[in-house]
Order: sequence, then C-alpha cells, then structure tokens
Amino acid sequence: MPVGTLANVKTVTPDQLQGTGAQMILANTYHLHLQPGEGIVERAGGLHRFMGWSGPILTDSGGFQVFSLSDMRSIEESGVSFRSPRDGQVIHLSPERAIAIQNALGADVIMAFDECAPYPASREAIENAADRTTRWLERCIKAHERADQALFGIVQGGTYLDLRQKSARSLVEFDLPGYAIGGVSVGEPPELIEKIVQATTPLLPKDKPRYLMGVGTYREMAQAIAAGIDLFDCVIPTRLARHGNALVRGERWNLKNNRFRKDFTPLDSDCPCYACQTFTRAYLSHLLRSRELLAYTLLSIHNITELVGFTQKIRQAIIQGTFAQDFRNWLQPAK
Amino acid sequence: MPVGTLANVKTVTPDQLQGTGAQMILANTYHLHLQPGEGIVERAGGLHRFMGWSGPILTDSGGFQVFSLSDMRSIEESGVSFRSPRDGQVIHLSPERAIAIQNALGADVIMAFDECAPYPASREAIENAADRTTRWLERCIKAHERADQALFGIVQGGTYLDLRQKSARSLVEFDLPGYAIGGVSVGEPPELIEKIVQATTPLLPKDKPRYLMGVGTYREMAQAIAAGIDLFDCVIPTRLARHGNALVRGERWNLKNNRFRKDFTPLDSDCPCYACQTFTRAYLSHLLRSRELLAYTLLSIHNITELVGFTQKIRQAIIQGTFAQDFRNWLQPAK
Repeated sequence: MPVGTLANVKTVTPDQLQGTGAQMILANTYHLHLQPGEGIVERAGGLHRFMGWSGPILTDSGGFQVFSLSDMRSIEESGVSFRSPRDGQVIHLSPERAIAIQNALGADVIMAFDECAPYPASREAIENAADRTTRWLERCIKAHERADQALFGIVQGGTYLDLRQKSARSLVEFDLPGYAIGGVSVGEPPELIEKIVQATTPLLPKDKPRYLMGVGTYREMAQAIAAGIDLFDCVIPTRLARHGNALVRGERWNLKNNRFRKDFTPLDSDCPCYACQTFTRAYLSHLLRSRELLAYTLLSIHNITELVGFTQKIRQAIIQGTFAQDFRNWLQPAK
Repeated sequence: MPVGTLANVKTVTPDQLQGTGAQMILANTYHLHLQPGEGIVERAGGLHRFMGWSGPILTDSGGFQVFSLSDMRSIEESGVSFRSPRDGQVIHLSPERAIAIQNALGADVIMAFDECAPYPASREAIENAADRTTRWLERCIKAHERADQALFGIVQGGTYLDLRQKSARSLVEFDLPGYAIGGVSVGEPPELIEKIVQATTPLLPKDKPRYLMGVGTYREMAQAIAAGIDLFDCVIPTRLARHGNALVRGERWNLKNNRFRKDFTPLDSDCPCYACQTFTRAYLSHLLRSRELLAYTLLSIHNITELVGFTQKIRQAIIQGTFAQDFRNWLQPAK
C-alpha cells in the first residue's frame, strides 16, 4: 500500500496511482483528524469519494503517530491525551474515539487502537503495552459500528519473541478479519524485524490477511512474504521521490548526480510506468536541477510502480513455485 | 499557449496537458540556455522528445528576459551582454546566437531576437529599439538554418501607435510565416494594450498567425481576438494555481478561503477537466491547507482547461457569427 497520509498519495493523482498497479492505499487517521477533520470527510461521502480513489483504503488507528509524540502525551488505561502540534489544543484519543473517527472516515480496513512501545524499552514496559493493546482491542470491537469495514488487530511485544507470541495468541481469540504486526520499524535492526515476523506470523491465521506495518524495502518485504505476510505499507517510494531518488531494480539512484545529466535512456527501460515510457534520465535530472515539482510526480509514479512490481513478481513466482529460487538474493541477510 | 518555461508546464504532465485541450505551448529560450543548455536538449532529440510533448511548441527569443535584467546588461548593435543570475558568468546574446539556440532546441515556431524597451521610456529610446529590432530581424533570417521551423518577427514601438505601425510595416516586408506584437504587458495600463493591438494588428497579414505576447486575461484576449489576434501565451493559469487560486468563469477564487472548506460541489460543475470531474472544492481546500503539491497540479489542470475553453468558446462563436453579441461583456472596458 502506498501511503496517502492526508487523503492523497503525495504529488500523484488517483488516475496516475491506478496506472502504477497499486491496489490499495493507506491513509492516516491522526493526520486526517487534525486536517480536515473526519466530519468533513464523512460529509464528503467518505474517504473514497473525498479523494477520488475507488480502490480499497486502510486507515491506521493513530496509535503510532500519537506514541511518536512522546514529549506531549500522557497514557492512561482510558486512552492517550496529547497536545495537537498544530494549535496546542489537548486531544484525547481512546480506543472508542479512534474507531469512531475511522468509522467516519469510512476506509475498507480500519485498525485497532494500540499502544506502540518505543525501541528500546524495558521488557516490563513492552509487556504492559502489549497487554493493554489486547484490552483496548476488546473496546475497539465493541465500539466498531460499521459491518462494511474490516477491523484488524495489531500484535505488539517489541523485540521479545515470547511477548510477540503471547500478543498474537490473545488477538487470534477474537477471530478478526485480519491481523497486523505493529511496533516494528521503530529503530530496531532489520535482522530483529525478520525474527519478529518469523516468530509471529505462523501464529496468525493463514486464511486472513497478515499485514506488516511500516515496512517496505525489497529485502524486508521478500523475507516477510517468505514468512507469510500479505500486506505492507511504506512511504519509501514517495519520500525517495521527493528527495530526487529513483528506485531502480532495488537500487537507489540520486538523479541529481552528474552522471545522469546527459543520459538519454529511460530510468528503467523494462519499466512500464509513464515516466519510463515517456522521459529520459536526462530530463528527470533537468527537472530536479530546475526544482520543478513535476520531477516528484514522475519519480513517485516510477517508484511506486517499481515497488508494486516487485511484489507482483513475487506473487507470480509463488504461483509458479520459484519464489525461493528466483528471490534468493533478497531472502538472505544484506551483505 | 500555456507556458512551459523550463521544458515543462509546471506541475502538469504532457498527458494531463493534452487533456486540458491546449494545442500548443511556449518554452523559454533564455531559461533553457541556462539549464539544461540547448546542447543537451538537442542531443535528446529536440524539445518535443525531451519533454514528451508531441504538439506544437514555440520558443521565445530570450529578448524579453534579457531586457528584464536591466541592472546586469549592456546593449550594443551586435547584441546584449549580461551576467547569468545563476553563476555570474558573462553571456552574450545576439540575433545569431538566439537563433542558433532556438535551432538547437527545435521548436516549431521560433521568435526573432528583439529589443524590448521598458515602460515608460522616451519616444527616442523606443524608436531606436524598434528600428534595431527590424535590423536584428534581418540578421535572424540570415542566421536561421532550419526550414522546418517558422520564424516570427516581433513588432515593437511601445505605446506610440505610429511607431508600432512603422515597426509592423517594416516587418511585413520580410514576408514571414507569422508576426507577433511584443513589448506589451510590461507595466502599461490595459487600455493602452488594446489601443496598440487595434492599431497594429490590421497591418499584419490576415492569412498569417498573429500573436500577442504575454497576454492572457479574459478581457485582454477577447478584445485582442476582436482586433484579429490568433495566438497568446500566458503564465496566469499555472501561476494562479501555485498561489491556490482557481479561475472560474473569469473570476479568481482563493481556494484557501474558509467558505470552501465544507463546499462539496465541484470547482465548476460544467467544466470537463479531471479536477472538476473528480474532486470537490472541499478537497482542493483541504490539499491547499495541507500544503499538498497535488493541489497545484489539480488547479493547474483546471485553470488551463478554463482558459483554453474560453478561447474555444470564442472560436465557436466566431464561426456561428455570434462573437460580438455573446462576448459583449468581455469586449467592453472593465468596470
């Protein structure tokens, strides 16, 4: 899922996004609560109509963002209070509130409100956060009012594999339509993410979507897919684009680099995207050197196509039974 | 012609631009000479291939930009010397050089290198600039090497109608494929532009394109078309977009205005553009308040469609013989 924080995937229209092959996108509850507010999105007819995207949408619960604001918040069993970085206003977010906001936004998949412990943290703090996440899940389920939205639970437990397994087992009791592994990509080494995924995923039902939150490099995705993960979200393709970087066959190229100035080949001649079919590296380099915003649009289109294409190739390889062989370079630890 | 200064119409892809109904675009010789340099554009296969636009392109001569750098230049009969605002390097631009650069860029229509006198200026200074423009035109014609590019001459003469007419008559002697009225929109009152156009256009051949440079408001265009003008270029639609403004039926709306926050109607329900067919004013307002770059893309698409649509309606009215009647509000002076 490309990330469309504020009800748009940055610099890309829904039409262009559809052309990348992306099937589903993620939008952020926390950001949309602050601007424009879920009331406006609801009155617009929900997120799909508001942003002109007819494909599936998932909203996160806001938990991850709120717990990133560590200086400004207080956590209690009832929920979290924090000051809006926009206007300093105190906002209270609870399981009930997070679900009510997501019910109003109207995404197809909504996420339970979780407590995401920082990395590193004591075992005790992490266990408490994971246990609370399970208690909050029960409140989320009770608060959830729309049968047309699938509510996913979030496994916590930090880098303690036994806590991860305890969390996963407690979630599965609720027989949810899907499960996520949260609290990763918070600063821990990539090897630990792989261990968490390998220890946790097998405990989640095979016939339900299994979603690894906030992960999206080639290696992390390939390894997680090997462990059984189905769904990812990642800001990398659009964020790299805004820094003038292209993802090409798993490498990152800085298009401002001098060697691209007179390179009259496409970014990737095998790529089906609009940018690669229409423009050269020299043109993209020129746009970046000219600080033309079109550069970000074209690089975003390419980078999303590239990353989605990687998962499409994996899907094809799984069907053909050649995944382990074809992707062995990505399934090993980085050199 | 929407303006694509640096070989792109800002924030809009060629595909999106085609959707607006725009037939022809303008690119700036001066800017492209500085970045990426005409050599790179030529090696890329010319402007069309470089920027992915297969429709007609016109390049200006750089004269207007050079003469705007009044502090940094010296003008002689041979040409103009100025310091590049990029790196302080001294650049010499002459009729021959301006044509050589445009031959390398490869647009369909190229412009003669003219001396554009400032407003206000003495009659003597303006007459000298106009006379020199005619002498320079002769050198441009000699220097021009590509039969597949149409070279247009530029009428000067400031706000002195007799000097304008003298300039026009001297240009027509050269039997060029098209003619432009330059040196307008340099600070003079709009009424004077209309007077210049009315005094000059009838002296330019009816069967050749007549181009009014740098003009593009509804009223200015309608009045100029009534006088016989065929072609315009203007940065207004894209510049307004980047300031969060929409052109709606000739009005300018600031979409950041509070009244649009909860307005769930399209910008203009009669407009066929992608932005109006897909999104609401509330969504555009939200994107602008979120500082999302997509706002500029969507507003540019709409504003160009709107302005091009205005000229399409005029064309239709001329064919039906109802132009003077249907557009009478725009053909009168502003109230």
